[in-house]
Amino acid sequence: MTMKPFKELMPREEAVKIILEKAKPVTRTEKVPIQDSIGRVLAVDVVAGFNVPPFDRASMDGYAVKAKDTKGASEASPVKLKLIGAQHTGGVYEGTVDEGKCLEIATGSPMPDGADAVVMVEYTKPDGALVSVLRQVSPMESMAEAGADMVKGTKVLEAGTAVTPGVLGALAALGYIEVDVYVKPRVAIYSSGPEIAPQGTSLKPGQIYDINSFTLASVIGMNGGESVKRGIMEDNLDSIK
Amino acid sequence: MTMKPFKELMPREEAVKIILEKAKPVTRTEKVPIQDSIGRVLAVDVVAGFNVPPFDRASMDGYAVKAKDTKGASEASPVKLKLIGAQHTGGVYEGTVDEGKCLEIATGSPMPDGADAVVMVEYTKPDGALVSVLRQVSPMESMAEAGADMVKGTKVLEAGTAVTPGVLGALAALGYIEVDVYVKPRVAIYSSGPEIAPQGTSLKPGQIYDINSFTLASVIGMNGGESVKRGIMEDNLDSIK
Repeated sequence: MTMKPFKELMPREEAVKIILEKAKPVTRTEKVPIQDSIGRVLAVDVVAGFNVPPFDRASMDGYAVKAKDTKGASEASPVKLKLIGAQHTGGVYEGTVDEGKCLEIATGSPMPDGADAVVMVEYTKPDGALVSVLRQVSPMESMAEAGADMVKGTKVLEAGTAVTPGVLGALAALGYIEVDVYVKPRVAIYSSGPEIAPQGTSLKPGQIYDINSFTLASVIGMNGGESVKRGIMEDNLDSIK
Repeated sequence: MTMKPFKELMPREEAVKIILEKAKPVTRTEKVPIQDSIGRVLAVDVVAGFNVPPFDRASMDGYAVKAKDTKGASEASPVKLKLIGAQHTGGVYEGTVDEGKCLEIATGSPMPDGADAVVMVEYTKPDGALVSVLRQVSPMESMAEAGADMVKGTKVLEAGTAVTPGVLGALAALGYIEVDVYVKPRVAIYSSGPEIAPQGTSLKPGQIYDINSFTLASVIGMNGGESVKRGIMEDNLDSIK
């Protein structure tokens, strides 16, 4: 046995440098259902195929209006607008919000033609066929424009991006069912030392159970890798080669 | 359509309180291989069946000695001890380290009878059949007692503990192959609203793709739960019942 003083151990930076020099980047890819892509790494750029949202939409429950119609509205001096109907989510109102009119609208619904703002329901009062508006709104208030989240034709995710719940949400929003990801990097684990015994055997004097291959495998898995256990080796280079 | 102002939304604390009141704790358990237990929750207390380490062991490469033999040792005035052999890991030295003697020992090896400390190899110099010790050591220096990590008979992990790589390591150290964990809590996901369209269909005017069921499912999975998608519902209570 030749003992090397610990002073001669390789500095961490040098070990990392060697690993990075020797390791070949993963280039093989595979298609996975988007719900299985968490923790994987995108192998392709993702370009928005359409605007998200695809249409101007209300971001509050309230009334779609022409903003200029609400000029000067206040609790003391409400503006009264004629209610022309209601727009639930999932459909499109066929008519137009003309001057002096308003359309009841639910969060997420497409904005009707003619309207350029939403008055939150909190700042209105129903008044028969009319709606009293108690506050002035600016154009674009309480609504989101088509493409507010993602604009058609723009790259929204780069190849090499790790898939988080947020990235998964973007893929779902763009209608993806599957996505190309790199295969998981495989990391071999060698346990070395004759003192290491596998679980399920009795410990002989001087032996301990294999611990590190389990903790390492779990950390590799939690970081997107695939561990491959290569068993317990003697404490010398030849047994590993 | 009856619009409720957002002011009337339920505060988060109240919603959490209702969920905690209505949810029944998971009591069903299952046995899983320890390598699959990451992120699961232990259903049993774990009591150490034996000491870890099971024996006094060297925590440095060096020489097992009687600490008192090194009294006053220094670079200028080394103490010379007779080398009686070497102890690699995985075995047990059969002899005894008597006064004036030392045993070459590798990190992790069982301490030989008679020795109560290790002199790090850095503080020694080989000298034929002798070893020059260049520094005084105290009893227990550079060694760990049997049970230093876990003492036989003590509870080392409580039922209810989430399994991390460290917990997994403790299970491995104690020789576990499988472990009892609670089954994953199942969380149903309802997507509501007629504006929600499943991926793989064309978006009709006013529709968007289902996003939240994917992001929610991934967050549930990342937090140890099992999500169950119940599909897309109408935006009213009856369709969910």
